[in-house]
Amino acid sequence: MAECQGDGEGAKSPMELYEKLTAQGEQVRALKTAKATKADVDAAVQLLIQLKTDYKQMTGQDYKAGCPPSENSVAPDNGPAAGGADDEDTVDPWNVSTNNAKGVDYDKLILRFGSSKVDKELVDRIEKVSGQKPHRFLRRGIFFSHRDMHQVLDAYEKQKSFYLYTGRGPSSEAMHVGHLIPFIFTKWLQDVFDIPLVVQLTDDEKYLWKDLSLEDCHRFAVENAKDIIACGFDVNKTFIFSDLDYMGASPEFYRNVVKVQKHVTFNQVKGIFGFTDSDCIGKISFPAIQAAPSFSSSFPQIFKGRKDIQCLIPCAIDQDPYFRMTRDVAPRIGYPKPALLHSTFFPALQGAQTKMSASDANTSIFLTDTPKQIKNKVNKHAFSGGKDTVEEHRKYGGNPDVDVAFMYLTFFLEDDEQLEKIRQDYASGALLTGELKKLLIETLQPMIEQHQQRRKQVTEEEVKLFMTPRPLNFNF
Amino acid sequence: MAECQGDGEGAKSPMELYEKLTAQGEQVRALKTAKATKADVDAAVQLLIQLKTDYKQMTGQDYKAGCPPSENSVAPDNGPAAGGADDEDTVDPWNVSTNNAKGVDYDKLILRFGSSKVDKELVDRIEKVSGQKPHRFLRRGIFFSHRDMHQVLDAYEKQKSFYLYTGRGPSSEAMHVGHLIPFIFTKWLQDVFDIPLVVQLTDDEKYLWKDLSLEDCHRFAVENAKDIIACGFDVNKTFIFSDLDYMGASPEFYRNVVKVQKHVTFNQVKGIFGFTDSDCIGKISFPAIQAAPSFSSSFPQIFKGRKDIQCLIPCAIDQDPYFRMTRDVAPRIGYPKPALLHSTFFPALQGAQTKMSASDANTSIFLTDTPKQIKNKVNKHAFSGGKDTVEEHRKYGGNPDVDVAFMYLTFFLEDDEQLEKIRQDYASGALLTGELKKLLIETLQPMIEQHQQRRKQVTEEEVKLFMTPRPLNFNF
Repeated sequence: MAECQGDGEGAKSPMELYEKLTAQGEQVRALKTAKATKADVDAAVQLLIQLKTDYKQMTGQDYKAGCPPSENSVAPDNGPAAGGADDEDTVDPWNVSTNNAKGVDYDKLILRFGSSKVDKELVDRIEKVSGQKPHRFLRRGIFFSHRDMHQVLDAYEKQKSFYLYTGRGPSSEAMHVGHLIPFIFTKWLQDVFDIPLVVQLTDDEKYLWKDLSLEDCHRFAVENAKDIIACGFDVNKTFIFSDLDYMGASPEFYRNVVKVQKHVTFNQVKGIFGFTDSDCIGKISFPAIQAAPSFSSSFPQIFKGRKDIQCLIPCAIDQDPYFRMTRDVAPRIGYPKPALLHSTFFPALQGAQTKMSASDANTSIFLTDTPKQIKNKVNKHAFSGGKDTVEEHRKYGGNPDVDVAFMYLTFFLEDDEQLEKIRQDYASGALLTGELKKLLIETLQPMIEQHQQRRKQVTEEEVKLFMTPRPLNFNF
Repeated sequence: MAECQGDGEGAKSPMELYEKLTAQGEQVRALKTAKATKADVDAAVQLLIQLKTDYKQMTGQDYKAGCPPSENSVAPDNGPAAGGADDEDTVDPWNVSTNNAKGVDYDKLILRFGSSKVDKELVDRIEKVSGQKPHRFLRRGIFFSHRDMHQVLDAYEKQKSFYLYTGRGPSSEAMHVGHLIPFIFTKWLQDVFDIPLVVQLTDDEKYLWKDLSLEDCHRFAVENAKDIIACGFDVNKTFIFSDLDYMGASPEFYRNVVKVQKHVTFNQVKGIFGFTDSDCIGKISFPAIQAAPSFSSSFPQIFKGRKDIQCLIPCAIDQDPYFRMTRDVAPRIGYPKPALLHSTFFPALQGAQTKMSASDANTSIFLTDTPKQIKNKVNKHAFSGGKDTVEEHRKYGGNPDVDVAFMYLTFFLEDDEQLEKIRQDYASGALLTGELKKLLIETLQPMIEQHQQRRKQVTEEEVKLFMTPRPLNFNF
C-alpha cells in the first residue's frame, strides 16, 4: 500500500519530483481520454496524489502545473497536507470541511491518504477472528478506512497480542455525542479482543492551540476522563492519562518523544500539518507527543519494558496526519508501525458539511443535555432531508442521505433491519420528518440519560485510579 | 539596558526596521567622520547593533545595506544571531571563533549582546554584600559581563534570597579543566551567599545534536555529575538533574517548558539560534528546556511551589542567547527574569582563537590526565608568547596576553601578587617560557590530582542522592 512518507526514504530533489508529477498528470489525462478502465484510472490517480503529497512534504508547497518548485518558500496557510485540487474536501486535525451535503467523500480520502478501505472481507475477518458479530460502526462503514489491520489480525491469530490507543483533546468540559464515537468503538474492540487500552488526553496541545490556561486544560482533561470512564471501560485494562501529568511521571514516555523529535524536521511538519514560521515552537514539536503513545515502550508499567507490542489506533480520519508521520518514523527508531482504524466524521445537527463544534451548543447534542433539550435541538436544528410539505413528502419521499436525524440513527440505532426499514420508509415518503425525528429523540434520550447516570457514579478515586500509571491485568 | 527582545514587544515591520537601520548606519559614519567623542560613537554603535539584532530576529536575515528585506527568506546557516560585519567574532552555543590571538573581543560582545560590564563598582559591591573577598574570576575579569546583578544584590540586602542555575551538555565522559570554570565559580557563589543550586545536564540536547544514543547521553550525564560533585558542592544545597530523568519526574518542570514553548515562535528561534527548516523539531523546541530551570516553580520540592524566587545563572557567554530568549518570555508568563553572570572562554592549549574541544585530547588538559600527561601537554602544545631564542626573549621579553600558560595561570593561580610578578617578569624577559610553563604545570598537577581524589570518593549513592528531586536545606 502506497503511503505518505517523510522525505527520509527514497528522497528525490524537488525538481525531479516536480517533473515526475507533471508526467503523471499527463498520464492520468491520457488514460481518461482513452476511456481506460476505472481500475487503471484509479491507480494512476492514486500515484498522482501520492506524488503530490510527497511534493508538499518535501517543498512545503502545493504542486502547481507549470510552476516549478522555488527554494525557501513557505506554506501559505494551515491548510491540509494533501490538499490539491480546489474541489477537494479539507481534512486535517484542525479543519474539516466539504461542500457536499452528504459529507466528506471518504472514498477519495482513502486514495488521498493512501489508506485501505474497510471492505467486507476485513469485516468478515474481524468477525471470524474475534468470534463476535462486528460492531454496527463496522457493519455500516462508519469505521471505513484502515492501515495494517490484516497484519494485526494475522499476528493475533498467532497469539501475538496488541494494544489500543485513542485520545481526546480536552478543549472544554462539555463533550458531545460525536466525541463518544471512538470510545464506543474502542470499548467494543477492547471487549472482543481482551487487550490493554491507553487513552491520551492532550491537555498540552489544547494549551498550545487555544487561549486557555494550563490549569483549565488539565481540569478539562480530568472532566473528560469521567465521560470516557462512563463509556464502561474496565479499570483493570485501561490507562487514561493527561500529557501534562504523564510527561512529568514517565521518563520512558519523554525518551520516546525526544526520539521522534530527533527524526522529524520542520520541513516535514510544515508539509504534513501546514505549520508556518509564525507558529510557536510548542505546536511545531507537539506531533511527537501524539506519536509517542503508539510505542509500547512508552508504558513500561503495562508492557514490562517491551517495545515490540503492536499498537492499533481507532480514531477519526482527521487525526491520520499525526500517524502517517508516526509510521514514517517508527522503523527508523526500531519500533513497529501503529495500525489504524479510521472513522468518518459525526455530522453537526445543521448538516454533514461540517464537524460538530464543542463551542456552539446548537450544533450538537451534548452529554449534559436534558431530555427536553435533546427533543428541542433535534426538532429545531437537525437538518432535514424531507420535503417542504407533507403532501410533497408523501408523494416524492425524503432523502435519508442528507437527513441528519437519519445519519444519527445510523450511528446509534443497533437494529440493522429497523434502520433499513426507516430508510426505505423515509425515502418512499411513508415516514414523515417529524416521525423520523421522534425515532431519533427516543433513541438519544435514554442513551444520554444512561450516560449521565454512569458518569454520576464515577468517583474521584476511580478517576484517580484510571489516571495512575500502574500495571494492568495483562502479562507481557 | 537595551536588550535583545523577541518580536513580541514594540514590533515594527521589517521595512520600517530596515529604514531605521540604514539611517542609524549613516549616523554612525557621520559621528566618526566628525570625530565625535568615544562615548557618543559607542552609544550610536550600540543602538546600531541592537537594531541589527532586532532585524535578524524579525526577518531571519542579516541586515545588508542596500538590500531591503525579502519575505519568506531563510537564515543561511547556523551562524550567530547577532552576526553582521565580517570582522566580528562568532559566539553562539555551538560556535565560538575569533581571528584575534588574545581571544574574543569581550567589550564588543557586551555591546552586541546588550549586557553590562562587571566593573569595579559591581565587584566591590559583591564584596560588601557577601562580606567575602571577591573570587579571582571576578577580580580578573573572567566573569566579565552580567545582566541584573545589581537587582539581585539589592534584593539580597533586603533579605530576599535567590538561587543559582548552571549546567553542562554531557557530550562525552571526559571533561576538561575549562568545563570546571562555571562550577568553580558557582561553588564560590553558593558558599558566600548560602543559596540553593540547580545543575541541568542537557542529555536530551546532546542526543538531538550529536550522533549519540539516548543511553550514552544519559550515561555521560551521570559521569559528568561525578566531576561536578567533586568540585565540592553541598548535597544539602544542590540538585543535579538529567533532563531525560527530570522531565519524566516533574510535571511542574514540563508545565514550564510548555509555557515557554507557547510564547516563542519558530521565527524567533531562527533569529536567535540560526535554526533552519531542515533542523529536527527537537532542536527547534529545545531552547524552552534550557529556559525552564530559570523559573523557581520548576522545582516545587525546593521552593515549595513559589514562583517568585529570583534565579542567577553563571555561565559562559556563548549560552547567553538561550537566556536572552528566556528573559524575553519571563514577564509574559508571570515569572521574574533570570539574572546572569557571563564568563570568558577558556582557551585551547593551541591559543585563544578557539574554545577547547572535548573531542581532541591535545587541545585541553582533561580531568583524567596524569601528572605526566599534564606536563607533556603543557610543554608540547601550550601556545607560547615567548621569543624564538633565549637571547631574544631576555632582550625583548615575552607577550603574556597571547601566552596560553599565562592565561591558564590567570584562571587557576590564586595569589594576585604572584600572578602580577609572573606577568611582569615574562614581559620583561626575566622569566623564560620553560619557566612559565613549569609554574603552570606545578599549579595544574596538584589541582587535577586533588580533583581525581575527590571524584574517586564520590559514591554511586551520593550521585543518586544529588540527582534525586528532594527538598534542600532552605526554607522558602
